[in-house]
Amino acid sequence: MENTVSGLERLFNPGSIAVIGASADLTKIRGRIMRALTDCATAARIYPISRSTDEILGLKTFASLAEVPEAVDLAIIVIGADKVIEALEDCAARGVGGALVFASGFAEGGNAHAEHRMAEIAAQSGMRILGPNTLGFYSDANGVAASFSPIITEWIRARGPAYRPCTEGVDIVCQSGGLGFALHVRALLERIPVRHVVTTGNEADLGAIEVADYLLSTGGSRGILMFVEGFKNVDALESLAEKAAAQGVPIIINKIGKSDAGQRAAISHTAHLTGSDAIYDAVFRRLGMIRVSTPEEMLAAAAALAKLPPARGRRVAVVTTSGGTGGWAADIVSGEGLEVPEPSPALRKRLDAIIPGYGSSANPIDVTAAVVEDGGAGLGAVLQEVEASGEFDAALVIVSFSAPGRVKGMRAVLAPLLAARRIPILFHSAGLPHPENLEALDEIGGLYQTLGAAGRGLRALAGYGAFLAAREQGRGPLVPAATVDPGAPPADLLKAYAIPTPPVGLATSADAAAALAEEMGFPVVLKIESPDIAHKTEAGGVFLNVADPEAARRGYATILANVAQAAPGARIDGVQVQKMAPAGIEMVVGMTRDADFGPVVMLGFGGVYVEILRDSAVLPLPVGRDEALGMIHSLKGIEILQGARGRPPVDLEALAGIVAGVSALVTQTGDRFAEIDLNPVILYPEGQGAMVVDTLFVDSNAGVR
Amino acid sequence: MENTVSGLERLFNPGSIAVIGASADLTKIRGRIMRALTDCATAARIYPISRSTDEILGLKTFASLAEVPEAVDLAIIVIGADKVIEALEDCAARGVGGALVFASGFAEGGNAHAEHRMAEIAAQSGMRILGPNTLGFYSDANGVAASFSPIITEWIRARGPAYRPCTEGVDIVCQSGGLGFALHVRALLERIPVRHVVTTGNEADLGAIEVADYLLSTGGSRGILMFVEGFKNVDALESLAEKAAAQGVPIIINKIGKSDAGQRAAISHTAHLTGSDAIYDAVFRRLGMIRVSTPEEMLAAAAALAKLPPARGRRVAVVTTSGGTGGWAADIVSGEGLEVPEPSPALRKRLDAIIPGYGSSANPIDVTAAVVEDGGAGLGAVLQEVEASGEFDAALVIVSFSAPGRVKGMRAVLAPLLAARRIPILFHSAGLPHPENLEALDEIGGLYQTLGAAGRGLRALAGYGAFLAAREQGRGPLVPAATVDPGAPPADLLKAYAIPTPPVGLATSADAAAALAEEMGFPVVLKIESPDIAHKTEAGGVFLNVADPEAARRGYATILANVAQAAPGARIDGVQVQKMAPAGIEMVVGMTRDADFGPVVMLGFGGVYVEILRDSAVLPLPVGRDEALGMIHSLKGIEILQGARGRPPVDLEALAGIVAGVSALVTQTGDRFAEIDLNPVILYPEGQGAMVVDTLFVDSNAGVR
Repeated sequence: MENTVSGLERLFNPGSIAVIGASADLTKIRGRIMRALTDCATAARIYPISRSTDEILGLKTFASLAEVPEAVDLAIIVIGADKVIEALEDCAARGVGGALVFASGFAEGGNAHAEHRMAEIAAQSGMRILGPNTLGFYSDANGVAASFSPIITEWIRARGPAYRPCTEGVDIVCQSGGLGFALHVRALLERIPVRHVVTTGNEADLGAIEVADYLLSTGGSRGILMFVEGFKNVDALESLAEKAAAQGVPIIINKIGKSDAGQRAAISHTAHLTGSDAIYDAVFRRLGMIRVSTPEEMLAAAAALAKLPPARGRRVAVVTTSGGTGGWAADIVSGEGLEVPEPSPALRKRLDAIIPGYGSSANPIDVTAAVVEDGGAGLGAVLQEVEASGEFDAALVIVSFSAPGRVKGMRAVLAPLLAARRIPILFHSAGLPHPENLEALDEIGGLYQTLGAAGRGLRALAGYGAFLAAREQGRGPLVPAATVDPGAPPADLLKAYAIPTPPVGLATSADAAAALAEEMGFPVVLKIESPDIAHKTEAGGVFLNVADPEAARRGYATILANVAQAAPGARIDGVQVQKMAPAGIEMVVGMTRDADFGPVVMLGFGGVYVEILRDSAVLPLPVGRDEALGMIHSLKGIEILQGARGRPPVDLEALAGIVAGVSALVTQTGDRFAEIDLNPVILYPEGQGAMVVDTLFVDSNAGVR
Repeated sequence: MENTVSGLERLFNPGSIAVIGASADLTKIRGRIMRALTDCATAARIYPISRSTDEILGLKTFASLAEVPEAVDLAIIVIGADKVIEALEDCAARGVGGALVFASGFAEGGNAHAEHRMAEIAAQSGMRILGPNTLGFYSDANGVAASFSPIITEWIRARGPAYRPCTEGVDIVCQSGGLGFALHVRALLERIPVRHVVTTGNEADLGAIEVADYLLSTGGSRGILMFVEGFKNVDALESLAEKAAAQGVPIIINKIGKSDAGQRAAISHTAHLTGSDAIYDAVFRRLGMIRVSTPEEMLAAAAALAKLPPARGRRVAVVTTSGGTGGWAADIVSGEGLEVPEPSPALRKRLDAIIPGYGSSANPIDVTAAVVEDGGAGLGAVLQEVEASGEFDAALVIVSFSAPGRVKGMRAVLAPLLAARRIPILFHSAGLPHPENLEALDEIGGLYQTLGAAGRGLRALAGYGAFLAAREQGRGPLVPAATVDPGAPPADLLKAYAIPTPPVGLATSADAAAALAEEMGFPVVLKIESPDIAHKTEAGGVFLNVADPEAARRGYATILANVAQAAPGARIDGVQVQKMAPAGIEMVVGMTRDADFGPVVMLGFGGVYVEILRDSAVLPLPVGRDEALGMIHSLKGIEILQGARGRPPVDLEALAGIVAGVSALVTQTGDRFAEIDLNPVILYPEGQGAMVVDTLFVDSNAGVR
């Protein structure tokens, strides 16, 4: 696969295109693809391969690939599924850069074998393959419409000869073909420029992650919109996200499978398994990928992120000419987890000097219509104050755009303001905006959104801004590998990673039991230690709450006597003395293995109530202390740990250390454990640590310790 | 106010209109209102009142109301705030039906006095007053544009002479004027017919509730869209909701004030206080009013509810020609709390007979494009099966409407199907729908929505359907008043309402303490009973966990000895013996008084974690057992009470009885208690009841018992 990148470049930005199976019948898919390619006025040379006609749309046809007079960059294969493999082998043999396979009826139709063969051909030849079961792609930047989707073909015909290619805009990468081209037109309607639409289908070779990575590498992307049903391989997800973040290009993603029905759909549609949704949620958050739930939300987030700078915090100024809409906006913005704080007294004073007396300098800042009607000078002054104050990270401006000419009338004020803005500024009009205003606003870099979309857009801007800021700090160090044998008993592993467990010792006399207990502090638990006794409690071999040396001595003797009676002849190693952990807040920490991401650490509150509310956090390994602290702070019940209702705050550092320790322990022991469960982990007040009271280590060969 | 209804009718459906302060300058508000009225081609006779001109837009002017040759139904007052009261007095004296006051600068500007006077004039004369600080109203049904809002005046000019009035449609009632008319045009864009837009402003006399009630009474409403910042008086809310439900007219409401900033906006805008948001949430749910968060959500819910029958359950069939969009739709629908279940094997068999082999009869039901392209016969057959099966309560159909003619091509199949539908059927197209298809779909009663809007629409349909079904059952009986003196001690009140508290008795000797304890069962608590000892524990006057008769005797003696030392000379009535309640799940039940709704009962889980997550339910009085059970089932942690993770289910009936008992107790004791707190209420397994362990009764005169 040494030729990978150039294979991708030849596929998506071809100098020569062969259409294998092209037809002159423009009502058929084999003809529609020809129409799309030629309508698009691509700079590439197009070679229809057909034995049934001499010419298609003025282009000479060729009987086979062998007859094409130059090397083919992109081969578009429009023939039935049964002949596809043969055609691909031919393409590979002739040094084609990339092939596009439309046909369905592969893994999603039970024919996984042919799809494996495609992957083999790609791997062996270096030729990249898009598909099968795809609607192809459209590159606005390169002028290539390698799709027969009626949506794209009609759009190309309608766009007119004056159309200029989009060299800076968002890229849409979709496993579903229909959805990809549908999102394209819906994005354009929202005035979001689109560079590429790539639909990856079954992903025999090229997957959504690699395509997105390639598009990023071409420069000019303002955002990647992804719709995926599942990933064949998540390994490259992190490097994709890292590359995007380094370029400041947001990735906005919908991954279906949140619901059972969504999962069924994904499997039957493109044969993707959908993985654990909670882990994907956590991974997307970790990687700064913005996950959305609806197409509306995707476009709202994309418009904001592609056109505006990210917000450095969560404080939003709502600047409005309408009291009612301003109040509604404040509720919506707050409902998205953002803040709509009152300006400082000093800023209010400055605002009051601009706003008429019947307005309000509280937030929402009701500037009144008068402030807009003077060519926008008042509005501009208010926005200047808002931005200069440093008290706000974003502004939502609500002003009527119903009457034409409104934006043009304020252009002299707004254009320089928007050009110099450091915080994102969004616009809304309660009444329907006149198209002329939207056009004029777009020209000066202003973003109009409906009210709900503005809320979603602001959330995305703040979320992405917070991610970029956190990214500068890095994820922090990992707990280093301990000097311990990876095959050591679990108790030794815990100790090596400083995961605190109660002191424990083995006594072989009553006096030794009392001495051990005194050394570790009361109360203690006494427990018979014998390889022959499985049910220690039933044999009278366990005493809880042993409170003083005398009770320890008495307990030792009683346990031995009980056991002698219940299990005569059992080998007795002695009596285990363990300090009882004092009461505290109970949590659980664990490790399980996810089908997509491998080992993941989880953390949550103990107790049945919390289990039912699923208040837990999860992340794939490795997780250091800083990320573990982030997981802790993502819990809904975090206030409890911070000392709500007069309780002392607990030792979060100790808990983070345990999570990071488990991560390091699992890294060191490799595949040894299938699952680890520390439950309960008892937390004490700040500075007083934590204690792991009970542990379960499940060996990968299914043995439980 | 005997004339109320006819006053409202004369105001909103006038035969004669006087415009007090009319002007011939059509650039001013005083002229714009004349333009709006005359453009609207109202059947009413219009009398401009002006001393500065003889004629406005061809209408003769009058120098004063006294000169108008007939009784005036509606007086539109377009004069400054300082002259409004005088004009209203004149109108009232001359028997005007209703007056509309545009001017601002009343309660919202600190001038509450003039607003009180308006209310007085209305109450004394029977003349109804809309405003002040309003943008007026527009009645499409009656052809009256009593507003100078540029949105409505421009829309009327643009709509053309062929326009036919809307006699069946939604009614918009908004406290905010700008928002009301903005919602009007946005609703029309979504093809939602609108009958009335009424903006109520400061509501000196007429409030949003009374206006909505009137509009309901005129017949033809398909839904009431309300935007309120607060209610002056909530008393009529329940009868409005009842009337609407009886007519099957949904009320869709946004009430701002969810956030602090929203509350600030409401107060500064129309001087409304916003009340407790959680209680409003509960009240809207109880009354079947659909609360929405964004304008987009309001219109999505309104379109679905105004055009489709409500859903009788939560089971949605997603019928799609696109696998990717189908999967996304399934996730979205599930995310709205609905179900997307697989069809039964029998139904799948019938569907498989219609759908091509590369489709899927699982849900999402992927019918493939082939099923649509044959004039929709296949799609029609699938929908018939889905509906006839009784397995689904709603269907979401995803089909491409991008190409013109698509709906017309399927009209023969779809029109009779939609006319006969018993379940709501919504349509979506992944690609942008061609306007011709939307028009054609609308004509046959089909509803198109974007994907997120379809999810919201389905949620609204299912929520409203569930409300209507529950309403048929009624709210159930209340706990009857007990035969107890309302002034009796709290313990007696609890007993009278069968609210279980642990057995308690007073012992005046050690033997009596032992005997009492033996009678009620161990363990017990011993507690000194003395009017002179406030801090019983500190005085050594409390013993917990007293386990046997001997300990009771010893405890009695020790308590008396302790107290004699700690508080010599204190009057001693004896030692209280109280049975200790066994452990169980701890809940809290209480009553507080809300500024808007008066006494409300609340119910929630005990413990700090749950307090922080705010997992509680609240409802205004009275609440019977059935509603109390509903409150219990609305808790997020309900699974715990139902026996999650192998625990026994607890006695929910007993808990409901306590909630209903508190409601009855408060009803009987009137204003006596400001607050009641039963905490903890310990729940035992089903059939074993509950126990109120501790109680706090706060007297309204601030004494605590």
